[in-house]
Amino acid sequence: MISTKEINLEKEIVDFIEWLSSFGKNENGGITRLLYTDEWKKTQDGLKDLIEEKGFHAYYDEVGNLFARLNGSTYTNETILTGSHIDTVINGGKYDGQFGIIGGIIAMEYLRDTYGPPVRNIEVVSIAEEEGSRFPFAFWGSKNIIGAVKKEMVEDLKDLNGLGFVEEMYRAGFGFKDESYEGRDDIKAFIELHVEQGGVLEIEKKPIGIVEHIVGQRRFTIEVKGQSNHAGTTPMCYRRDALYGTSKMIQAIMDKAIEYGEPLVATVGSLEVEPNTVNVVPGQVIFSLDIRHICRNILKEFTDETMSIIKKIALKMDLEVKIEKWMDCDPIAMDKELVDIIKNKCSQKGLDYKVMHSGAGHDSQIFAKVMPTVMIFVPSHKGISHSPHEYTEPEDLVEGVKALIQALYCLAYK
Amino acid sequence: MISTKEINLEKEIVDFIEWLSSFGKNENGGITRLLYTDEWKKTQDGLKDLIEEKGFHAYYDEVGNLFARLNGSTYTNETILTGSHIDTVINGGKYDGQFGIIGGIIAMEYLRDTYGPPVRNIEVVSIAEEEGSRFPFAFWGSKNIIGAVKKEMVEDLKDLNGLGFVEEMYRAGFGFKDESYEGRDDIKAFIELHVEQGGVLEIEKKPIGIVEHIVGQRRFTIEVKGQSNHAGTTPMCYRRDALYGTSKMIQAIMDKAIEYGEPLVATVGSLEVEPNTVNVVPGQVIFSLDIRHICRNILKEFTDETMSIIKKIALKMDLEVKIEKWMDCDPIAMDKELVDIIKNKCSQKGLDYKVMHSGAGHDSQIFAKVMPTVMIFVPSHKGISHSPHEYTEPEDLVEGVKALIQALYCLAYK
Repeated sequence: MISTKEINLEKEIVDFIEWLSSFGKNENGGITRLLYTDEWKKTQDGLKDLIEEKGFHAYYDEVGNLFARLNGSTYTNETILTGSHIDTVINGGKYDGQFGIIGGIIAMEYLRDTYGPPVRNIEVVSIAEEEGSRFPFAFWGSKNIIGAVKKEMVEDLKDLNGLGFVEEMYRAGFGFKDESYEGRDDIKAFIELHVEQGGVLEIEKKPIGIVEHIVGQRRFTIEVKGQSNHAGTTPMCYRRDALYGTSKMIQAIMDKAIEYGEPLVATVGSLEVEPNTVNVVPGQVIFSLDIRHICRNILKEFTDETMSIIKKIALKMDLEVKIEKWMDCDPIAMDKELVDIIKNKCSQKGLDYKVMHSGAGHDSQIFAKVMPTVMIFVPSHKGISHSPHEYTEPEDLVEGVKALIQALYCLAYK
Repeated sequence: MISTKEINLEKEIVDFIEWLSSFGKNENGGITRLLYTDEWKKTQDGLKDLIEEKGFHAYYDEVGNLFARLNGSTYTNETILTGSHIDTVINGGKYDGQFGIIGGIIAMEYLRDTYGPPVRNIEVVSIAEEEGSRFPFAFWGSKNIIGAVKKEMVEDLKDLNGLGFVEEMYRAGFGFKDESYEGRDDIKAFIELHVEQGGVLEIEKKPIGIVEHIVGQRRFTIEVKGQSNHAGTTPMCYRRDALYGTSKMIQAIMDKAIEYGEPLVATVGSLEVEPNTVNVVPGQVIFSLDIRHICRNILKEFTDETMSIIKKIALKMDLEVKIEKWMDCDPIAMDKELVDIIKNKCSQKGLDYKVMHSGAGHDSQIFAKVMPTVMIFVPSHKGISHSPHEYTEPEDLVEGVKALIQALYCLAYK
């Protein structure tokens, strides 16, 4: 028998998602909510109003993170934080980020209405920015909360329309935190509820994932230079074909990634050819390389082998190659105790789960540097993400919120 | 001793090239003259005025080919035609196409001034379009001259800005030829003077190439479909990576082309990835394939092997592949008698030459279907073409024009 409470929970979650998804909806059916745009501001303001209607204290920090707070009765200098990011990629879906905020608010409300005030404070954060989808800077929200930003990091940034980060921040009514700010010392744990953005939970038919590691990532831009030439009049032996060389590199890199085995992933996602004309031998190719693993040493080993492969092929084919590493994030482990707490609660309550790693970056990797952190995943249909076709079954959304309720109860009511 | 006449010839050629190159010059220093654009029209009109100033009859046909005519005294229903195309690729050089027109006008003027009227008519044609660089249709000019076009071939064509072929043709003041037109029956031979667009003549230090064959060409668009996925959360074994598959295809095709040996050439010149984002496994790749050879059977054999390679790889990697062949031109031999005439004249006059094939398509391959045709090449520095850096030494330009003068004299004055 499904309890009335559960039916209400599912309806509550689905309705909240639909309501919040109306903010920033675009004509393709997706959601576009980029940091400091008007749509983004309306969303945060709309959420703030709703939080206050629900009887919680709502407040912004200086940069635009929005917090919903339920005061604790006893340990008033200790806070359990949950939430996720409110911003989206361009034409994103209804779950990535905002589900964690919605789940947190619903969980906090359920706990207050069922058990009264907690002994420690609970806060749900609607994090201002995580995706890096407007300006070339990601995790602006969470990095500010832990006191890990300096003005210089963003002062010169512009978006693709030439609008400046700082001007847009001021225009939205926000500003920098004080230089002296070093992070909050009251937050004792951060729990992030999020969609998996991969297909594993669905394939293995598990409604909940408990995340033990967030992968490290290295991203590169590789420029291969040969010589453009006429496709008809240049004999093969006189060519320095940058695309032929790149094809050899890509094949070798992918073959090696498969050889290394899970959980290593390597992706050449973007590639541009010049001059990109049917009857001209390609003189230049620029491609991206994205490598991820949960173990720093293996990440380094694979990277070194890949660089060596690329350079060997370039040398053999008389091509020049320039490699620029522009992202280098170490893997990070989640808090073992928090992982165990959630495992135990899930087992007790009959919530089926899988312990796994996250192949995507999340605000949790920022929080985990300074406080105990854990993530709870729910399945993504066919692993689809960053798309209006993102989907999670309502019953799985419910399981995720139930797991969060259990975790918050454990941490804030005992 | 270089004769005063030769110094004049070199200066005349170089000055004419500089003057004509001012039409359609863009800010990169290259020339962009696309069919039926304003720059193209100004160029043809400018040439027409110049031709008339030189005392020749100048006229347009219906579609915009421009002719300069020197009437013969005796065989007035016989015409020897020379010339080349006036249009360019985007940001092209000063020699490709227009050198053949300039050389023809200078040659015709030299012959008239030295020997008076010929016995047969001589015409120099500034062919409206050859490159296919604006609309997806090449050889519009020459195909019209030989009566090989139907309206339906171009009626629905649009350029990359969505402008229609027919609208643009009318806007430039031109239109279709009459449906009953079957080509001219007065043209007895076509000689095209052109830059090699390859590096062979320069490497072998020959100022003149006499072309025996124009290669056959096959061009394909190949669409490879896999599945877009998150680059972090999708294990390698669950991927259907269209770019990984394409890389294997390209490597295999190039390896096989090298195995076949000269004169086979194969090129993947253009490639587009979707969604082309650093952190998304490529779900689709569209690439071009350009294959050329002077022998039809080998062209077919290599094509068949290539298609088989592509399909095998697609099958093995669970990718869908769609192959569209959109160009299939047979190789064509030039006229043996004309080749011999030019060889003999060159030998007589001490002009050093190489008999060779053309790896590029030219209007000559269109004319050769219905009349005796031959091409005269001059070297291209480093084989550079379709670029503002196209270059031929002035002394080689002179040798080419001298060879053309000799050929026209042979054919029109005897």
